[in-house]
Amino acid sequence: MTSISGLSSADWRARLSAEAAAAPASGIAQVMRHGFGRSGIIPLWVGEGDQPTPAFLCEAAAAALARGETFYMPQAGLTELRGALGAYHDRLYGGLFGAPFRAERFFATGSGMQAIQIAIRLTAGAGDEVIVPTPAWPNFAAAVGVAGAVARQVPLHFASTGWHMDLDDIERSIGPRTRALFLNSPSNPTGWTASEAELGAILDLCRRHGLWIIADEVYSRFTYDMALRSTPSLHSVVAADDRVLFVNTFSKNWAMTGWRIGWIEAPEALGPAVENLIQYATSGVAVFMQRAAALALNQGEVALAALMERARAGRDIVTGALARLPGIDFAPPGAFYLFFRVDGVSDSTAFASALIREADVGLAPGSAFGLGGEGFFRLCFARDPNDLRAACGGFADWMAARSPA
Amino acid sequence: MTSISGLSSADWRARLSAEAAAAPASGIAQVMRHGFGRSGIIPLWVGEGDQPTPAFLCEAAAAALARGETFYMPQAGLTELRGALGAYHDRLYGGLFGAPFRAERFFATGSGMQAIQIAIRLTAGAGDEVIVPTPAWPNFAAAVGVAGAVARQVPLHFASTGWHMDLDDIERSIGPRTRALFLNSPSNPTGWTASEAELGAILDLCRRHGLWIIADEVYSRFTYDMALRSTPSLHSVVAADDRVLFVNTFSKNWAMTGWRIGWIEAPEALGPAVENLIQYATSGVAVFMQRAAALALNQGEVALAALMERARAGRDIVTGALARLPGIDFAPPGAFYLFFRVDGVSDSTAFASALIREADVGLAPGSAFGLGGEGFFRLCFARDPNDLRAACGGFADWMAARSPA
Repeated sequence: MTSISGLSSADWRARLSAEAAAAPASGIAQVMRHGFGRSGIIPLWVGEGDQPTPAFLCEAAAAALARGETFYMPQAGLTELRGALGAYHDRLYGGLFGAPFRAERFFATGSGMQAIQIAIRLTAGAGDEVIVPTPAWPNFAAAVGVAGAVARQVPLHFASTGWHMDLDDIERSIGPRTRALFLNSPSNPTGWTASEAELGAILDLCRRHGLWIIADEVYSRFTYDMALRSTPSLHSVVAADDRVLFVNTFSKNWAMTGWRIGWIEAPEALGPAVENLIQYATSGVAVFMQRAAALALNQGEVALAALMERARAGRDIVTGALARLPGIDFAPPGAFYLFFRVDGVSDSTAFASALIREADVGLAPGSAFGLGGEGFFRLCFARDPNDLRAACGGFADWMAARSPA
Repeated sequence: MTSISGLSSADWRARLSAEAAAAPASGIAQVMRHGFGRSGIIPLWVGEGDQPTPAFLCEAAAAALARGETFYMPQAGLTELRGALGAYHDRLYGGLFGAPFRAERFFATGSGMQAIQIAIRLTAGAGDEVIVPTPAWPNFAAAVGVAGAVARQVPLHFASTGWHMDLDDIERSIGPRTRALFLNSPSNPTGWTASEAELGAILDLCRRHGLWIIADEVYSRFTYDMALRSTPSLHSVVAADDRVLFVNTFSKNWAMTGWRIGWIEAPEALGPAVENLIQYATSGVAVFMQRAAALALNQGEVALAALMERARAGRDIVTGALARLPGIDFAPPGAFYLFFRVDGVSDSTAFASALIREADVGLAPGSAFGLGGEGFFRLCFARDPNDLRAACGGFADWMAARSPA
């Protein structure tokens, strides 16, 4: 890198806070950089489908802009949006604590990422610890570090029948500074999905140790089971006094990744604290975005079902294609990712780079997802079936060519 | 507040991190809450004009949405936007370090507030200190606290000829943990504006002590001097090795307060660190917003001039009206605020509340702006002239009625 400054990049980094200097580059953002504006690559590395946001949502935002809804907003979010979140949760979970969900539990955030940032700050101070079961979306642990806290990684156990979380492993990782557990079910990238019994056991463990749960159920609507509107949720087992924060996003269900809008759900008594952290982060979310988000909740089920169907078809294509290849192993996928292991790979970043260069197939390297991820690759299958077939074919050919056979 | 939980609000707060529990409510957001959806009030408390975003910018965002620009984006911002920021700065300042501004110095953020959040984290770790000259926009100091650092307030000195920053006061406040100085010129709320000589002296002081400057020149285009395109800027005195971060926003110049988009300008060698902090905050800014923001930079001068003219007319109305009132004192205003003192007021929050209730005039209480603010009130004059006249008339009548005469 050139710089007009006479100082080196290392000199500049030495001038930063320890938290900023230690923040890692996102392994996913690094591989994505290959893809922006480059043609030919089939980009399956990122957690994003290939469908733009449904037109009726874009039009709702455009209409709000045209109406002049361009002023400051209540920092907690519009009453309309908070109410729509309550009604949406009522439809999914049939209420909370024996009553309808209260709008006051919900707060609009400038992305699911920001919901996570705020949940971390609510629960963990400088020097505190947060437990992160891995492999996991790397942004969570990185955001813990940016907050001056420490992410304690606890790997899940892999078997081709399914990933497994061992609660004894979790309990052993709890120390005097542990404040929270990050619980991502269905998991990005592994697809691990807790049963209701497992959720209850995890909640009991956290109750015993006075830990918060930061619950990321972002992929709960991607069930792959026609009978289920949602995977098992902590909403079904939580009690009013439990330390549970939910973080969520509009990105996946309604193809709104590029909007940067999400929500945090918190005990109502924490409303002022949540609002203050929103105020000092981005101070709120654009009203014209919130109008579209409320519409997605109220009228977005058909669009979501179509995305779900596309993901199901994608899942069948990639699991079918990769199951036939030698040296490939994976558990039943969840969310909209296949997380598969390639025998003999000990540097997934180098492998993924070679695959991009030589076969134009973009996968996220497992090493980006923390402990237990090395040797694996994440493939997003919420994409065009033809692209998925082409990617799997290209991958199979490339594997065959590099194999000494 | 009711809560289904058996715990009190205090019990819940005790479960939070120290940083979250200590985050103060924004004094401005608190008074604004009176205003959302309530008619009759003339709301001069908030830093926002009454004009919606110019239609051509709204249309640019709507067109991008219609084109399907709803996917993830490069975390640093679009090349188009970063280039437009460079060109905009070239037009204002004629280059930097003897060359055109490089696009690589600029990073899109999800509001000026987020630019501040990131600048604080870049420079200050947990337990570090940041100097904040006051009265100041309260969000800066609050964001320092959320980051686990300490804001050290140093009051400016008031005289009706102008506010004054005493560099000896600043220097005396520097301790072993001091990492940065927040420099807001023109100042919200006081209107204090540093001359180029003062900027040079402040920079020298910070060089001697190895401090970062977090430069907030958000109001630099509101000059009230037809000959100036911008107030004096640190850009004119900074050298390539200086520790200076600029934080800025599209909110004020182009009436985009409700959009939540801004930028941070940093030494190019810090690009990876800035990008990482963006990634773990909101991961980027919506592409359709960035398209509008780039257009504002490239073609927004006529719209900005109209807003500037409106602010100038507003300034003349409120300074003319309030100068005639007994017991009112103020320095020449800057930014688009009049920050005036009312003799004998020792509780500006109570005074502002009574004024809202009894005269439907909304002012921000000076106590919200930190040390040296009590007894003052902030009035935003970037508003409809008739509203400003009505507000000043209502205020004068109310003052006369409450005075024992």
